[in-house]
Amino acid sequence: MKNFVSMKSFKDFELLALIKEVDQFFNGQSVNLSKDRKRFVANLFYEPSTRTKMSFEVAEKKMGLEVLDFHVDQSSVQKGETVSDTAKTLAAIGAEALVIRHPEQNIVQSLATQLDVPVINAGDGKGEHPTQSLLDLYTIYREFGRLTGLNILIVGDIIHSRVARSNAYALKTLGANVMFSAKAQWQDSSLPFPYVDLDQAIEQCDVVMLLRIQLERHQEKDSFAVESYLDQYGLTEAREQRMKQDAIIMHPAPVNRDVEIADSLVECPRSRIFKQMEYGVYARMAVLNNLLAEETDYSDTITEKLYAHVNGI
Amino acid sequence: MKNFVSMKSFKDFELLALIKEVDQFFNGQSVNLSKDRKRFVANLFYEPSTRTKMSFEVAEKKMGLEVLDFHVDQSSVQKGETVSDTAKTLAAIGAEALVIRHPEQNIVQSLATQLDVPVINAGDGKGEHPTQSLLDLYTIYREFGRLTGLNILIVGDIIHSRVARSNAYALKTLGANVMFSAKAQWQDSSLPFPYVDLDQAIEQCDVVMLLRIQLERHQEKDSFAVESYLDQYGLTEAREQRMKQDAIIMHPAPVNRDVEIADSLVECPRSRIFKQMEYGVYARMAVLNNLLAEETDYSDTITEKLYAHVNGI
Amino acid sequence: MKNFVSMKSFKDFELLALIKEVDQFFNGQSVNLSKDRKRFVANLFYEPSTRTKMSFEVAEKKMGLEVLDFHVDQSSVQKGETVSDTAKTLAAIGAEALVIRHPEQNIVQSLATQLDVPVINAGDGKGEHPTQSLLDLYTIYREFGRLTGLNILIVGDIIHSRVARSNAYALKTLGANVMFSAKAQWQDSSLPFPYVDLDQAIEQCDVVMLLRIQLERHQEKDSFAVESYLDQYGLTEAREQRMKQDAIIMHPAPVNRDVEIADSLVECPRSRIFKQMEYGVYARMAVLNNLLAEETDYSDTITEKLYAHVNGI
Repeated sequence: MKNFVSMKSFKDFELLALIKEVDQFFNGQSVNLSKDRKRFVANLFYEPSTRTKMSFEVAEKKMGLEVLDFHVDQSSVQKGETVSDTAKTLAAIGAEALVIRHPEQNIVQSLATQLDVPVINAGDGKGEHPTQSLLDLYTIYREFGRLTGLNILIVGDIIHSRVARSNAYALKTLGANVMFSAKAQWQDSSLPFPYVDLDQAIEQCDVVMLLRIQLERHQEKDSFAVESYLDQYGLTEAREQRMKQDAIIMHPAPVNRDVEIADSLVECPRSRIFKQMEYGVYARMAVLNNLLAEETDYSDTITEKLYAHVNGI
Repeated sequence: MKNFVSMKSFKDFELLALIKEVDQFFNGQSVNLSKDRKRFVANLFYEPSTRTKMSFEVAEKKMGLEVLDFHVDQSSVQKGETVSDTAKTLAAIGAEALVIRHPEQNIVQSLATQLDVPVINAGDGKGEHPTQSLLDLYTIYREFGRLTGLNILIVGDIIHSRVARSNAYALKTLGANVMFSAKAQWQDSSLPFPYVDLDQAIEQCDVVMLLRIQLERHQEKDSFAVESYLDQYGLTEAREQRMKQDAIIMHPAPVNRDVEIADSLVECPRSRIFKQMEYGVYARMAVLNNLLAEETDYSDTITEKLYAHVNGI
Repeated sequence: MKNFVSMKSFKDFELLALIKEVDQFFNGQSVNLSKDRKRFVANLFYEPSTRTKMSFEVAEKKMGLEVLDFHVDQSSVQKGETVSDTAKTLAAIGAEALVIRHPEQNIVQSLATQLDVPVINAGDGKGEHPTQSLLDLYTIYREFGRLTGLNILIVGDIIHSRVARSNAYALKTLGANVMFSAKAQWQDSSLPFPYVDLDQAIEQCDVVMLLRIQLERHQEKDSFAVESYLDQYGLTEAREQRMKQDAIIMHPAPVNRDVEIADSLVECPRSRIFKQMEYGVYARMAVLNNLLAEETDYSDTITEKLYAHVNGI
C-alpha cells in the first residue's frame, strides 16, 4: 500500500486483511515503528476534529512514532502557503507520512500523487473518509463476524457525507446490502444505492448507521426544521423498538443529540457509538502499519481459509 | 483517590500526605507510570492557561505519560459537541485521566461523576482550582514547616477567585488562620472567613497571598480604577516593609504588575511567585501519581509521627 | 555559547565550527540530550511558522528532548501576560532552553539577558533569524565546499527581512561577496552592502538568494504591483538561464510563486529550496547541542587544518 486515500481502491480481500489487522491490534498486538531511529508523522488538519485527530495521535504514539502536530492557524498557511507546499515542507523536514484533513474534495488524493511519502486521507470535504470507514467495517465485523449479506441502512445527510461515501463503496465491495434513507434534498443520485423509507426498512436492518448533519457544508443555510427532523428522519425510541433483536446503531459522531438520534439512545445497549471511537485507534494503527512497516503482500497473507473465515462463510 | 476536583473533599491527613508526596517529587523521586505500556492523559483546556497547562504537561511527561493536547478551537467543539461528549470521546480513545479547565463552575465535578476515568479539576470558572491550592500549600509548608496556626491573608478579587476558594477550604482544614481582604464588591459572604483591613492586618501575617483580578469574570466591566487600586488594596512597597521578617508573598500569576502588587516586589526576596510555578510541577505529579499509580491508603502511610512532623508539632 | 540570538556575534571560526557540526548531524551523528533525565525545551512562537517551528520540533525530538509547545492564543498572553513573564514562567516550570519568535525587533536579545536559561532567536520582527542563516550557510557550504570568495546576491524585500540581515552579517564574516538587489523602497541603507542591478549581476552570482515579500510587515499596504514584480525584480526563467552553470537558487520560503520566483523554477534542478528545509533540522540540532550539551571550546576543536579545510583553502 502506498497511500490510503479512498475505499474505492480496495478489493474485498484487501479490506478483509485490513479488518483482520485492526482486530490484531485490538487484541493487544504491539508494533514499534521507531525501533532503530525516531520516525515522524505529521497530522495536518485544515478542519476541526476531535475523534479522528486524537485517535490518529494515540495510534501514532502507541506505535512509537513521533507526532508533528501542525496547527493551520499558527502556520505559514497564514502567509498564504498552499497545502501542497506545506505538505512538501513537512516531508522535507522529516515526516515519513502525512495524515491530512481538508475541506476541499479530492485534494488529498491529488497531494498523494505529488508527494514521495505516504498520504492518509483523514477526510476530504464531501469526498471520502476511509479510516472512519475501516473502523466502521471493523465495528460491524466484530458484531456479526461477517459483512456479506448484512442489511445496512445509512440514514441522513448523504450528499454531504464523506462517511456515507467511503462506507457505501467498502460495504458494497464486501457484499453487504447497502440502503440509504434521506430526505429528498440530501440524496445523492451519483451513488448507486437504493433509497428506502426509514419506517419501512427499520425492521430489516442489521445496522442503522446515522450520519451527522453537516451543517457546515450546506451551501445555503438549509431551512430544515431541526425540531421536526428527529421525528421525520431520525432514530426515535419508537423506531429503535422496531429494530431486529441483534441490530446495532452506529454514528460517526459528533452526534447532534435529539436531531439525528434521540438523546436516550446515544448510549443505549444497541449503540456502538463510543465503541466505534475506541476501535478507531486500532483502525488507524492498521493503516499506519501498512504504510510504514515493511510491505505486506496481502495475496500471500490472506489465504483462502482466512478469506472464508473473516467473511463468515 | 478517584478524582481530584475539590479541596473541600480532603481531610487534614490526606492533604498532609499529598504535601509530603509533592516534597518527595521535588526532592527527585521519579516514577514511570508507562512502564508496561504507553499510557495517555488528555488535557482539555476550555480557557487560556500557561502555568497550569504547561506544568501539567511537564509533570505528565516526567512520569512517562503520553499527553493528548486537546485544542478546543480545532476540535469538534466547533461543531457543537458538548464537553461531556468530548470528555467521553477522549476516554474512549484511550485517555486514562482527564485534566479539565472550563469557564463553567461545577462542570468538572459533574463530569467526574459521568466518567469512568479519573478527572482532575484544573479550574472550573469561579469554583475551585485544587492543584493550584496544593502547590500553594506546599509553598507555605516548605517555608514554615507547618500550616497550623499560621496567619494567612488572601487579598483581592475573592468573589471571582477559584484559587481563594480552594485555598480557604484547604488551609482551614489544616488549621491555618485564614483572613480575607477585599473591597466591598469583591467580598464573598458565602465563605466563612473574616474580612480584615489590609493595613491593620499586614504586620500579623505570615503569608500575604494576592489574587489576580479576574477581569474576564466580572459581569459588567467593573468601573474600578486600575490606577488607584494598588494604593488602596494592593501590595505597595510601603506595606511590604511592614510585613513580619519571615513573611512571604504569594500570587498564583499571571500578575497584573502595579495593580495587585508593585512591579518591584514581584521578584523581591519575600516573593515566592516563581517558586510557586516551579513547585506546581511537583504538585501535579503527586496528584497524577495518586490517580494513576496503584492505590495508596493514606491511613497506612501517614503515621502519627509523620502527621505530627509535617504539621510542625 | 550561552544564547543564539544574532549572527553578528560570531567570529568566522565559530561559524565554521557550527557549519561542521550541522554536517555531522546531517551525516547521521546522533545525540541524546535526555540520557539521565527528561529535559524540556519550550517553543514560543508569537508569529505563524511552519518550517522553523516544525524543524525545531523535529530537531528537539531527535535529540531526545521533550517539547513544550506553547500556544499564544490558548495561554495567559490572552490575560495580558508579557512575553518576559511568560518566558520566565516556562523556565520556572522546567524548560532548559527557550526558542522564541516574536514580531518585535530585539525583544529576543533582550529576553536573553533576563533569563538564566539559553534563548534561541527563531526570528525577531525585522531583526535577525540566525538559525535560518545557519542552514543557509550550510546549504552553500555543501554546494561549494567553501564560503569565502563566493558571489552571493540577495534579492527582494531587504528592509523587512531578518533573513537578509542575519545572512549578510554571517556571509561577510565568512568572506563571501554579498550584494543586494531591491527596488528603491525596499533597500536598507543601514546595511553596508552594495546594491546591484539584478540583470547585470545575475551572470556573476554563485548563489541567488530570493526573499519572501513580507507583506505582513509593510507599514502601509504597499502599492507594489504583484503582477509586474516578477518581471521587474523576480527570478524569471529568462534570468535563470543566464545564471552560471553551477549557480544555485535559494529562498527561505514560504515562496510566493510567480512573485519572487517563477513557479516553474521553485523545484528546478538549480533550486535548493526544499533542501534548505531539510538542512534546517540539522542546523537546529547543532544549535541546540551547543547550548544544551557540555560546553565545546571552539578554539580547541577547530584546528588550523579544519579551518582551512572547511573554508575551501
